[in-house]
Amino acid sequence: MTRGDDIQLHTLIKEARMQQVTINSERLWQSLMALGKIGEQDNGGMYRPALSPEDQQAREWLVSQMESMGLEVKVDGALNVIGRLKSQSPKTEQVVAMGSHIDTVPNGGKFDGAYGVLAALECVKSLQENQVTLPFDVEVISFCDEEAAHNAGTVGSRAMMGRLLPGELEKAKIKGEKPFRYFLEQLGHSFAAVETAQRNADEFLCFLEAHIEQGKVLESRQQSIGVVTGIVGVYRYIVTVTGEAAHAGTTPMSMRKDALVEAAPVFTLIPQWVHEQNPDMVGTIGQVTVLPGASNVVPKECRFLVELRSQQSQDMQVVRDKLINYANLRHGWNIETIYEKDSVVLDDHMISCLSVVTEAAQLPYITMASGAGHDAQSFAPSVPTGMIFIPCLAGVSHNPKEWITEEDASNGCQVLMDAVRHLATQV
Amino acid sequence: MTRGDDIQLHTLIKEARMQQVTINSERLWQSLMALGKIGEQDNGGMYRPALSPEDQQAREWLVSQMESMGLEVKVDGALNVIGRLKSQSPKTEQVVAMGSHIDTVPNGGKFDGAYGVLAALECVKSLQENQVTLPFDVEVISFCDEEAAHNAGTVGSRAMMGRLLPGELEKAKIKGEKPFRYFLEQLGHSFAAVETAQRNADEFLCFLEAHIEQGKVLESRQQSIGVVTGIVGVYRYIVTVTGEAAHAGTTPMSMRKDALVEAAPVFTLIPQWVHEQNPDMVGTIGQVTVLPGASNVVPKECRFLVELRSQQSQDMQVVRDKLINYANLRHGWNIETIYEKDSVVLDDHMISCLSVVTEAAQLPYITMASGAGHDAQSFAPSVPTGMIFIPCLAGVSHNPKEWITEEDASNGCQVLMDAVRHLATQV
Repeated sequence: MTRGDDIQLHTLIKEARMQQVTINSERLWQSLMALGKIGEQDNGGMYRPALSPEDQQAREWLVSQMESMGLEVKVDGALNVIGRLKSQSPKTEQVVAMGSHIDTVPNGGKFDGAYGVLAALECVKSLQENQVTLPFDVEVISFCDEEAAHNAGTVGSRAMMGRLLPGELEKAKIKGEKPFRYFLEQLGHSFAAVETAQRNADEFLCFLEAHIEQGKVLESRQQSIGVVTGIVGVYRYIVTVTGEAAHAGTTPMSMRKDALVEAAPVFTLIPQWVHEQNPDMVGTIGQVTVLPGASNVVPKECRFLVELRSQQSQDMQVVRDKLINYANLRHGWNIETIYEKDSVVLDDHMISCLSVVTEAAQLPYITMASGAGHDAQSFAPSVPTGMIFIPCLAGVSHNPKEWITEEDASNGCQVLMDAVRHLATQV
Repeated sequence: MTRGDDIQLHTLIKEARMQQVTINSERLWQSLMALGKIGEQDNGGMYRPALSPEDQQAREWLVSQMESMGLEVKVDGALNVIGRLKSQSPKTEQVVAMGSHIDTVPNGGKFDGAYGVLAALECVKSLQENQVTLPFDVEVISFCDEEAAHNAGTVGSRAMMGRLLPGELEKAKIKGEKPFRYFLEQLGHSFAAVETAQRNADEFLCFLEAHIEQGKVLESRQQSIGVVTGIVGVYRYIVTVTGEAAHAGTTPMSMRKDALVEAAPVFTLIPQWVHEQNPDMVGTIGQVTVLPGASNVVPKECRFLVELRSQQSQDMQVVRDKLINYANLRHGWNIETIYEKDSVVLDDHMISCLSVVTEAAQLPYITMASGAGHDAQSFAPSVPTGMIFIPCLAGVSHNPKEWITEEDASNGCQVLMDAVRHLATQV
């Protein structure tokens, strides 16, 4: 903490004494459990992939929640849900936006994403209940398809910040499957309207996201809050190696063009290149498809997905270029970029703001980087963006066993609320 | 040809002059087209995997064909269809058996297997029509599951010759799928009855199989008949490498147990070992499954299928042992034998018999080895076994485009018929 932070903290404690607003943790928990019923499976896991009927039902539930609170509600062209609390005495036209996502991975948990949306909603409920007047409007946003059900993920937040790649929503994630566009149109929405979701960065005073950690750091270090300083970049590629199908019994080895044999060295080269570049970066080939996939046919195609992550975008660029150079020297290789999301550093002022209110609330916290991507990433390059993590049980996420405590949920929500009120003093 | 062959040939031509029996090529073609309707798909390809409803329908069609010919018809415990033409004046209790299979690979062709069954059936029809008296009974057999729909393939012929491995029909081909036993019982048959299909090798005077080549040799060399001298052995293994699933974003490279990275070197080592052992042998990894198969999860399992083929069983044993030694020096490897079918040499007397009748019919022919497995392989170790190939268009097989000419079909059938009549002179 700097001397400036000390003064901030002092001011904050004074403010807090003047008017303590405490969020309603029981109501927050009930919201989480209510949303957790939509798409719940027998094993307690969630099935709410973006644009599924369950996701649509959750969206309608959220809209009705916001309407019953009297918010100005909008579902934009990318199916983001936006609920806006208007200021009674605005001092700025810029809005403080908070949110995350309500879609889940298949067989996922109840808190990934949902927590950030419902904590933001609880903040607004508490502000209304306590008749707190803010000098700005506040928005609660639930972004569409964060979990990459159909594409690269963070679709809604990237649509809002103009960061979708040309044509990406019209490409299926996996050959033979349907793209985002198809599912959007199946729900009766116009594909052309997606671009109307884009907003100007200047509309936002800041963006704040609360999320479960999805790792074990907070739990193992017994911390209540992680103030996020940056989010790793993620580069993803589909590599297709084309050979020639042939009868495995009658085609001599010397006459084969076996796509798997051609592709295989890269499965071990990627980890090697990654390690050489930076021991802190990671590279993974998690999906491999060998076609036609018959025991007695020489593979005609080997397709695999390369994912690189690092705090430094340059690391990913170096490894990507090694892969491209390797491919260029050979025959039958094609590398398609799924996306390149650069690493982002979160806003210093937001990091400081979140830190001081957490300190004031006497909650143990640390600053940390996020190894996973989040909607905040879409905002960070052009809007002052802050993010907090709360602990999740054993670090488990994307799993029916994903769980948080009511106390941790409450703490994170209170920090979000305090941050908004602290920001109000600075406008 | 030896001097003995010359004498044989001379005798044969004399016999032929005495009583020429010509098969009915139009009727054979009609049979092929009729069977080709059962399980035919829109693209002309066949869907008749063993124990499917389509396979069952084809079996019933074949039984009714045989019954209408007055044959003694039996469907045995392994669902082989056997039609027996009784001799009017037998000189031996041993039977001359001919046959192949009527199951197909998914999206296969109309002639692989079906040709051998229907050519044999046409022989019997012509023998009946021409009131030819033979000194032995003749059987036409259609074997169940040659194409490895559920297991190792050649199930019916191996059941008949007592060559099934203990428990193999109760294991699914692919984890999570159902085994042969399940589908058999679904059709209302007893699994225990499979072993009643076993017969004594002494019952057979010989076994003859006609088949399409499934390669380009006959076509490119403009030959009508290939007399098969031997069939390559096939060894197949499922290799499972077990690692640990982990979040691809938050798990450092040094803490991973990535099953794909562990398995990958073998994808290039197998071809290398095969090449070192014998340039004429082949080795293929045609199926690879990486689990859980998500772009952002470190692979917890890599499972792949290794297939080795050679004219020398020893070649396959050497490469297999290299693979086992490699696996034994590492962690998390498991190698499961699907089957080890040794290479077989076909019977000299049958090769000679088929050669002389082909020569007598003035058809261009060559002797050749088979790179693919066939039901004949199950008989060869204990019954005098012969096999002929007819050309198929561009060597294409296991494909809707698989095709033969009516003339080649007719030629092969005539050779089969002539061979049976020639054998009759030798009893």
